Amino acid sequence: MTEIKILKNILAANEGQAALNRERFARHGLLALNLIASPGAGKTSLLERTIDGLAGRCRIAVIEGDITGDHDARRIAKTGAPVVQVNTEGGCHLNAAMIGEALREFALAELDIIIIENVGNLVCPAEFDLGEAFKIVVLSVPEGDDKPAKYPLIFSEAGAVVINKVDMLAATDFDLAKAERDIRKINPHVPIFQISCRSGQGLDAWLDWLVRQQKDHAAE
Amino acid sequence: MTEIKILKNILAANEGQAALNRERFARHGLLALNLIASPGAGKTSLLERTIDGLAGRCRIAVIEGDITGDHDARRIAKTGAPVVQVNTEGGCHLNAAMIGEALREFALAELDIIIIENVGNLVCPAEFDLGEAFKIVVLSVPEGDDKPAKYPLIFSEAGAVVINKVDMLAATDFDLAKAERDIRKINPHVPIFQISCRSGQGLDAWLDWLVRQQKDHAAE
Repeated sequence: MTEIKILKNILAANEGQAALNRERFARHGLLALNLIASPGAGKTSLLERTIDGLAGRCRIAVIEGDITGDHDARRIAKTGAPVVQVNTEGGCHLNAAMIGEALREFALAELDIIIIENVGNLVCPAEFDLGEAFKIVVLSVPEGDDKPAKYPLIFSEAGAVVINKVDMLAATDFDLAKAERDIRKINPHVPIFQISCRSGQGLDAWLDWLVRQQKDHAAE
Repeated sequence: MTEIKILKNILAANEGQAALNRERFARHGLLALNLIASPGAGKTSLLERTIDGLAGRCRIAVIEGDITGDHDARRIAKTGAPVVQVNTEGGCHLNAAMIGEALREFALAELDIIIIENVGNLVCPAEFDLGEAFKIVVLSVPEGDDKPAKYPLIFSEAGAVVINKVDMLAATDFDLAKAERDIRKINPHVPIFQISCRSGQGLDAWLDWLVRQQKDHAAE
């Protein structure tokens, strides 16, 4: 009896809290993104590059989700962007209540974009709405071009897909055309960005897209 | 009411079924391994190399766990090893009942080692016992040397850790000494194998270890 109550509360609270988060983002004209990927695909590197690349154009804050530790939050803090670390203490995904708590730590009126870096996991975060405008999926070249076909849910829910580490294409047998074809089978019109956070290749198109989304969002 | 029953049944069934699987493996002197890693770390490549490298020494069968599709099972079938694909249909990990079902498909008396490739996920599979002798964690170099500190549970439960894709060390800033230090903080005596499934580097030590484990297991 206790367990079913907890389970129901968790599910109901997530939907309700996600709607509350979404209202808060809308009230401040904030674009909120939920960044999802396997461990080590380069989510934090993409954040560092994005904050750096949009300096002076967009005010960005970050919520760092991890099972434990504050490694990524310390990396983001170095960029000067406001950042809050959320630890799930074993949990495999962030939920909307965790984000609601974290939002108290920011001056939302002074922000344009808030990016939530989810726990490194290509499966479970797909199921939990955080109130974001878009889920952004990062797929890295060393993971292999078979991942869209193998993890279809998250690719079907993506508002954009970033293929990161394209500087490693020559060192792998990753077939970019196949990966894009498989992504489009699941999500026909999703924007796909080919990026190397290491070399900076392809970042401009991603940053311009983000700025356009933020403007559209603020104008709504 | 329905949900709590389902939840309790799932948890109870997993413990009970894992014990049944373990008994079955023991009865046949079979070494069972539960292979866990992020998507794209190289679990299937390690299986291909292992089956090939132990040809004539050990009879190996494989259970391939994926959310959907039979991509990996088709790869393993090409090696000639017996293989069964288990699809979780959205689930983020294998459970012991799925393995119990899959075991019906094999002639267990004719095998020495059974390797279960779990769903690509560094979090949830850590919590579900499948009846295996060891969990084997594969960490790949492009994922970064921070992963043991960020996903401690799975590294603490590992019976061995394979660091794969060491041929990519020069192309990344992965610090092998740091990764090993962080693994040993969590799991002081765990064997760690540095491997490249691409070049074959380091495979012999891994294969020899496996054969020793299999012999110890069969002798029990």
